[in-house]
Amino acid sequence: MTGIKVHGNTLSTAAARVLATLYEKDLEFELVPIDMRAGEHKTEAFLALNPFGQVPAFEDGDLQLFESRAITQYIAHEYAPKGTPLIFPDSKKMAILSVWTEVEAQKFDPAASKLTFELAIKPMLGLVTDFAVVEEFEAKLGIVLDVYETRLGRSKYLGGDCFSLADLHHLPTTHYLMGTQTKKLFECRPNVSAWVADITARPAWKKIVAMRNTH
Amino acid sequence: MTGIKVHGNTLSTAAARVLATLYEKDLEFELVPIDMRAGEHKTEAFLALNPFGQVPAFEDGDLQLFESRAITQYIAHEYAPKGTPLIFPDSKKMAILSVWTEVEAQKFDPAASKLTFELAIKPMLGLVTDFAVVEEFEAKLGIVLDVYETRLGRSKYLGGDCFSLADLHHLPTTHYLMGTQTKKLFECRPNVSAWVADITARPAWKKIVAMRNTH
Ligand SMILES: N[C@@H](CCC(=O)N[C@@H](CS)C(=O)NCC(=O)O)C(=O)O
Ligand SMILES: N[C@@H](CCC(=O)N[C@@H](CS)C(=O)NCC(=O)O)C(=O)O
Repeated sequence: MTGIKVHGNTLSTAAARVLATLYEKDLEFELVPIDMRAGEHKTEAFLALNPFGQVPAFEDGDLQLFESRAITQYIAHEYAPKGTPLIFPDSKKMAILSVWTEVEAQKFDPAASKLTFELAIKPMLGLVTDFAVVEEFEAKLGIVLDVYETRLGRSKYLGGDCFSLADLHHLPTTHYLMGTQTKKLFECRPNVSAWVADITARPAWKKIVAMRNTH
Repeated sequence: MTGIKVHGNTLSTAAARVLATLYEKDLEFELVPIDMRAGEHKTEAFLALNPFGQVPAFEDGDLQLFESRAITQYIAHEYAPKGTPLIFPDSKKMAILSVWTEVEAQKFDPAASKLTFELAIKPMLGLVTDFAVVEEFEAKLGIVLDVYETRLGRSKYLGGDCFSLADLHHLPTTHYLMGTQTKKLFECRPNVSAWVADITARPAWKKIVAMRNTH
């Protein structure tokens, strides 16, 4: 046992990013469910783990972390020899990988998260989708995916020749969006479409989808 | 000569993040000015360096990077022994540092950048500030600064005991905001206020402020 605990649940995109990393690295961990409808993420006990009151929170022995992308970086570095190598040992290759994890965080996620909320989460909660917001953010996502289409014509994966954190970080929002009208933005771009098919078919990701479906 | 080139200018917050890192690391570099009013960042030559058409773009020999935070990470790792150590060798300390670089990117910057645009950039361009937007994002920034106030009561710097990338990444937007009404949000929190005074007084940052003032 590594003593790893993830506080969160599989429906959260940020928590799913961490869980996908743990499955890729073949690490044992305990998933501590957080009942967000009951406001468990705003209790004092949870705020001690993440002062922003958001899932996921993460523990590895006495190390406590939050922010999904900081957690995945830690796991990938700390457990480098285990499972899928999600980072690259060469410093220049690693720098390119970092460019694309930044692109995910700075460009893709702001649009993808907004669309996920409007088109996937709101319907689940019985709220009304705002299609003006959808239009605005589909236009923004399209610009990002144009850059991806070119990049993926030159490199099999965003970060380089192998699957890495740069691809993995996209999985949770992309998975949601593939069940919405925004799917068309991915499907009309052949390189992006092949990349989505490839990364969503990974056994580690499929485990999370299966966990979601049993909830 | 290391062969480092930064394409951008000191008024850009993202470019200034990279320049501050280079000065902290005591590295020589060439600053290639990009005339954004003339749309130079949307030319084919520039788009080959950054497909999103934004400054900064960065070169180190034949390595080409964009996204300011990917560039600072590369510089800090590649030139670890030079100048100020902006990262930590211990993996657990480094993980904590990453939490706070993520907090800057995910929580602080979205609010700080919006406020910088409304209160510092728009007036420079002769555009009208939208005070409804200012109110909305000052409220968001206040929540982030509450978390910082607690953190900085326990730790001298955000990332740990020493100045690091986690602090440095805040400099460009914080510097702009200290010249606006938003200054009060920093000043009314004693730990945040002392931290701002400390990090903005660093010689590396002062060089950038001096470069700005000569433009
Ligand atoms: N940047 C954070 C985002 C975390 C986040 O937004 N978590 C959502 C669920 S996906 C949450 O806890 N929302 C509840 C809230 O904000 O109150 C990360 O990557 O960990
Ligand atoms: N996430 C990017 C942001 C870059 C960015 O927004 N650059 C601005 C100047 S601070 C820019 O080039 N704006 C022009 C544009 O977007 O067309 C980074 O950190 O490098």
